[in-house]
Amino acid sequence: MTPLPPSEPSILLETTAALEAQKIRFEINRIKLPIGLEKKFGVIHHPGASLAVPITNDGLIVLLRQYRYAIERRILEFPAGTLEKDEEPIESMKRELGEEAGYKANKWDLLGQMSPCPGYSDEIIHMFLARDLIELIEKPTGDDDEDIEVLHLTKNELDKYISSGDELLDGKSLTAWYRACQFLKL
Amino acid sequence: MTPLPPSEPSILLETTAALEAQKIRFEINRIKLPIGLEKKFGVIHHPGASLAVPITNDGLIVLLRQYRYAIERRILEFPAGTLEKDEEPIESMKRELGEEAGYKANKWDLLGQMSPCPGYSDEIIHMFLARDLIELIEKPTGDDDEDIEVLHLTKNELDKYISSGDELLDGKSLTAWYRACQFLKL
Repeated sequence: MTPLPPSEPSILLETTAALEAQKIRFEINRIKLPIGLEKKFGVIHHPGASLAVPITNDGLIVLLRQYRYAIERRILEFPAGTLEKDEEPIESMKRELGEEAGYKANKWDLLGQMSPCPGYSDEIIHMFLARDLIELIEKPTGDDDEDIEVLHLTKNELDKYISSGDELLDGKSLTAWYRACQFLKL
Repeated sequence: MTPLPPSEPSILLETTAALEAQKIRFEINRIKLPIGLEKKFGVIHHPGASLAVPITNDGLIVLLRQYRYAIERRILEFPAGTLEKDEEPIESMKRELGEEAGYKANKWDLLGQMSPCPGYSDEIIHMFLARDLIELIEKPTGDDDEDIEVLHLTKNELDKYISSGDELLDGKSLTAWYRACQFLKL
């Protein structure tokens, strides 16, 4: 697996407040930065996530149009999910690909890691390419709050969605798509 | 300006807890989703941000290697900044391009909008292409906590950084770079 660039920790002086919701925890921390400055920052602690760019044997890209409460809109995203405790990214992704998109993949490649929100979240997303797809006869049950439509797009259709502004762009999905295009030399 | 896809609000039933840090506010909200389900979600309220892909007249791409406390690493990012109260995205970006990268741009194009973290943040980032760059003789003072190195890369160098995994990928920067490549037909 591609390693992350080296870590350069700040010094945590004090956590002045914290709140937890589902799998994320928001903290206000007084820290000392490597440049020596002491400052308070708000930060989300997140268990990490994985994402897959699924491509069918016909070359169609599998995307989800998903309702997102935070932005109060439906947006195009690749199947992805937050890691459960002690769960390996690839195992999590295999589960999510079934639950969200209704597929099993027999060929997996790693596309690296990305940070969706380095300004205020420690979340790291592990990106995979999922090929040799088999559609599941019965889609396993996912989270009860998911509101998802599965789309199958050609590369041209996806690129048109991205360039037109008709669909809101999601950072993790575009990053993974860029990496998939590099990997597949598209 | 490219419009966002239509909004589809959830019903806010109750905010059970909230914390503020600098420009962001974390809330735990009990809401009713469009599918009818009631659930508690943690969400970051963010004033929005802007980002620029600056390209010199020699075709070099201007990037920052910036220390990020949340992920305790230096990562490659395009110049970007959080909007001040009532600030227009383009005006914010002109200021940040000077403070972070030391440039003024005479040619601006809009590359659309993106969501860095639709699962738990309402942040929307306005993306611009900044060309016809003039290097400022004196770099204006930015935020006191910034720890930034300015890089000038060719497209090949940037693509190698992205594919190698030697630098951590940042969602907003890769999304903007994808859009810039589309816009410039690179």
